[in-house]
Amino acid sequence: MFDRIGSFVPVLRWARTYSRHSLSNDLIAAVIVTIMLIPQSLAYALLAGLPPEAGIYASIVPILLYAIFGTSNALAVGPVAVVSLMTAAAIGQVADQGTMGYAVAALTLALLSGVILLAMGVFRLGFLANFLSHPVIAGFITASGILIAASQLKHILGIPAGGHTLVEMVEGLVTNIGATNPVTLVIGAAATAFLFWVRKGLKPALVRLGMPAGAAGVATKAGPVAAVFVTTLAVWALGLEARGVAIVGAVPQSLPPLTMPSLSPDLLGALLVPALLISIIGFVESISVAQTLAAKKRQRIDPDQELIGLGAANIGAAFTGGYPVTGGFARSVVNFDAGAETPAAGAFTALGLGIAAVALTPLVYFLPQATLAATIIVAVLSLVDFSILKKTWTYSKADFFAVAATVILTLGFGVELGVSAGVVLSIMLHLYKTSRPHVAEVGVVPGTQHFRNINRHRVETDPSLLTLRVDESLYFFNARFLDDILQDRLAGDHGISNVVLMCSAVNEIDYSALESLEAINHRLKDLGVGFHLSEVKGPVMDRLKTAHFLEELNGEVFLSQYDAWRALSRARHVPDGAPAI
Amino acid sequence: MFDRIGSFVPVLRWARTYSRHSLSNDLIAAVIVTIMLIPQSLAYALLAGLPPEAGIYASIVPILLYAIFGTSNALAVGPVAVVSLMTAAAIGQVADQGTMGYAVAALTLALLSGVILLAMGVFRLGFLANFLSHPVIAGFITASGILIAASQLKHILGIPAGGHTLVEMVEGLVTNIGATNPVTLVIGAAATAFLFWVRKGLKPALVRLGMPAGAAGVATKAGPVAAVFVTTLAVWALGLEARGVAIVGAVPQSLPPLTMPSLSPDLLGALLVPALLISIIGFVESISVAQTLAAKKRQRIDPDQELIGLGAANIGAAFTGGYPVTGGFARSVVNFDAGAETPAAGAFTALGLGIAAVALTPLVYFLPQATLAATIIVAVLSLVDFSILKKTWTYSKADFFAVAATVILTLGFGVELGVSAGVVLSIMLHLYKTSRPHVAEVGVVPGTQHFRNINRHRVETDPSLLTLRVDESLYFFNARFLDDILQDRLAGDHGISNVVLMCSAVNEIDYSALESLEAINHRLKDLGVGFHLSEVKGPVMDRLKTAHFLEELNGEVFLSQYDAWRALSRARHVPDGAPAI
Repeated sequence: MFDRIGSFVPVLRWARTYSRHSLSNDLIAAVIVTIMLIPQSLAYALLAGLPPEAGIYASIVPILLYAIFGTSNALAVGPVAVVSLMTAAAIGQVADQGTMGYAVAALTLALLSGVILLAMGVFRLGFLANFLSHPVIAGFITASGILIAASQLKHILGIPAGGHTLVEMVEGLVTNIGATNPVTLVIGAAATAFLFWVRKGLKPALVRLGMPAGAAGVATKAGPVAAVFVTTLAVWALGLEARGVAIVGAVPQSLPPLTMPSLSPDLLGALLVPALLISIIGFVESISVAQTLAAKKRQRIDPDQELIGLGAANIGAAFTGGYPVTGGFARSVVNFDAGAETPAAGAFTALGLGIAAVALTPLVYFLPQATLAATIIVAVLSLVDFSILKKTWTYSKADFFAVAATVILTLGFGVELGVSAGVVLSIMLHLYKTSRPHVAEVGVVPGTQHFRNINRHRVETDPSLLTLRVDESLYFFNARFLDDILQDRLAGDHGISNVVLMCSAVNEIDYSALESLEAINHRLKDLGVGFHLSEVKGPVMDRLKTAHFLEELNGEVFLSQYDAWRALSRARHVPDGAPAI
Repeated sequence: MFDRIGSFVPVLRWARTYSRHSLSNDLIAAVIVTIMLIPQSLAYALLAGLPPEAGIYASIVPILLYAIFGTSNALAVGPVAVVSLMTAAAIGQVADQGTMGYAVAALTLALLSGVILLAMGVFRLGFLANFLSHPVIAGFITASGILIAASQLKHILGIPAGGHTLVEMVEGLVTNIGATNPVTLVIGAAATAFLFWVRKGLKPALVRLGMPAGAAGVATKAGPVAAVFVTTLAVWALGLEARGVAIVGAVPQSLPPLTMPSLSPDLLGALLVPALLISIIGFVESISVAQTLAAKKRQRIDPDQELIGLGAANIGAAFTGGYPVTGGFARSVVNFDAGAETPAAGAFTALGLGIAAVALTPLVYFLPQATLAATIIVAVLSLVDFSILKKTWTYSKADFFAVAATVILTLGFGVELGVSAGVVLSIMLHLYKTSRPHVAEVGVVPGTQHFRNINRHRVETDPSLLTLRVDESLYFFNARFLDDILQDRLAGDHGISNVVLMCSAVNEIDYSALESLEAINHRLKDLGVGFHLSEVKGPVMDRLKTAHFLEELNGEVFLSQYDAWRALSRARHVPDGAPAI
């Protein structure tokens, strides 16, 4: 009984054996992650168009709930860049930024995502994440990175601008560029340059100074904190607010509030599709990170339980002033590198952020928005990687086509259309490929019992016997294809008296394909041509028996293609000396 | 040059060799089909909610255009039951029946369908019809047949009623049943009973009287004409119009008029999805009929050229007062049985209907709508066949599930949702199945070089060597699955030092699967476990080489699984006496 509850509430399993050693490791990891998360949470809230505290709130209760229901020991849940951008795009369509309705829509979006993720977990629909092919994800992340960076340029310049596509954003920037605030630009540009240097140059420098590579890597994650500290101090000391530098301003000093998402049917209807996309994208991002980190320790995570963990986290975000969250790449890697051993590290991080929310928020009053924009730009530009286009171009044109479409449509028409088009295109291209399976006409290799493609090998054939080998399972999408090929072949050649279908690569025959085989069988019967099968796999054979197809077959089922050749070939005497029929 | 034009305009090919013999056969077929089409065209127009002449018009120019651009010698193009129902459902959403806007919307729908079909033909997208699996089509046709029959009951009862779902229709009938017109009911019920008898009993009776079976079959198709003749005469002679019997009334005496579909963006937007569904359903129905008939004479039809033929026919319908058309089953079979040899038979049918439109329309003034409803009911109930549910239940639960959903959703929520859900569900179930391919752990059959599933056969294995055989191509949808299986297997077993992937059934590895293999390779490398491939097919191997995967492989590629076993097994000495490594 306890184990059954434990299977849905993993905390009950690991908490029983929690050790002092794990506690100290988890505590250290939590402190490091908390320091990293404060500026990041504020920045992603800005990206989502929400007040800065929403980012902090979205990192507290969701982390706790994930610690209870999730299975990864290192995953850190909270706001992430791509989901923040998708949130802004989704709720920007139903409410104006800065209004109460906008914040409520964010809560509702988190609730919907949470319910969708939870339902997918309970019904074990984790396989739906497979809809996203790797190249489509790569293309989408790259295009989103560019969109996110472009969306932050207005904060670096200190001008108003909006838009959800690259063209709209560039238009907005060009229109208002004359209003650039020089002080803001100096702060923003300096912070960006500093953070790029921290990312590229600081770690090697620290390592040269004798710091261990791991520690140096973690230390560079404190770069944004340093930038926040210095620029906040500068604004406060030099009174730059009066010079037009946009600052974060007053952030409420409180623990996450209890909030109610709206359940208005209109709003739920409008946000359903975006919530579905956010859920799937968020799940894919999270599961990739979690699997990568778990595999390093030969641990396993359970994808369906992860859905439940992420679902709980999002529902938690909906009722505590947050917005949609998922397992983030950067924070999870830091958590893992800093030595987190159990989900308790996440709970301690939540505690740290809770303290920050109550005690430290006055300190960010003078924090320039330009600094937050700089941390976002530097973070997301590391996601931009066009090499996927070159790689897929070399490897597979179909994959290339799907990536290129995803990138272009995401940049040109926004995240939702981009990723939807990528998914649909991947599936259609895959179905298209399998709808035209490789079908080889085969003949016997002289002196052997092997049958090979007549176009590739020197083989013996019999003009009265047509043997086709299909290198794919037969199912509705290619059912018609075999029929077409046979009709083509038979329409021009009246000398064929037997057709053999060699099924060695057929793993399944669905009902549509069965009907096609029946139709082929009837047509061949009308024409006085025999129809035979060879090398049918056991499970496929069992199914064909249930359908009575074999009784109606105008021919035989041969165990091997060689048996079929011996029985049906008229062209020659078979090796064992028996005359051919 | 001529041949190149000929490839898009097939008439240029067959017209050059047209013989006197073909001419007489085509003429006879045309007369028979024309007689059959007159009541059928009027009835289907009624079903689509359009004035009766629209059905006639939709059978004239479309037939001519198909004769020029189509490739089937027997296909008869015009209004059909399912497409008429779908037309009513689609334009019922944008206009009220009986208004000018309704007729214009029908023209626009035909134009959209025509353009979609034409575009699919030019871009060779005929494969899109494969989206519809056979069981989904069967379920959809059955459910549509029920919907159509239900929609006609109001004409038999002589009461008003509406609705696009079974529940709505039944509600409408129940509400108004008190207003039933007894005379109409007598006419409707008698016509229905007569037509059922013609269909079931007349042909055997004629055959008993010595008529050849083929001719008897054609003669029974004249049943509706007889019903029309008798009931029209009765209404006229007995003055039943005054007793409240709804009649066809005045039909303009004219050739098809020149009409203009609306190009309003709102209307085009609203009708786009319905037009797409109508195009695909119509194409599937048409191509099935055309292929069946062509195969009987060992002829071929070209699916992409068929799209062009049907596209031209629909565009023709849009500009000549018609509505969406396709190749019909009943009329095509009659055309074929009556001896049609070339598309010229269609042209002669168009001529016959043109004469009817000019000369015979006054004769149908007193034709009761109940008679037309009876011809529709009898025609569509022959399409209703629930055996597909039983057949798929026995053969494949996934197919059963798709059919059941299609039937229930079509009846409950209308044709568009029903068929869309069927398509989406079929694709998802197929992807789900291939997302969990059959993966067998194999060992060597003692004394042979064969490798078999360790769970099914008594085989030798080596605890340090894990060999997995995947019975499916590797692609994005199942990329994660192999990774999961390997992680499960390795997480619990630290004795494994080599993993071999046996690729004999892998026909393709897409880019997502390549990345998964790379990830597996890196993880196994980290764990100090070798990763090897065996029996990789030539084309797959070529691709892997372009991706440099083989250079990074932490192991080898073996030509055969037996080579891998000899090289990697530590458990035993191999048969040729060389010590295992």
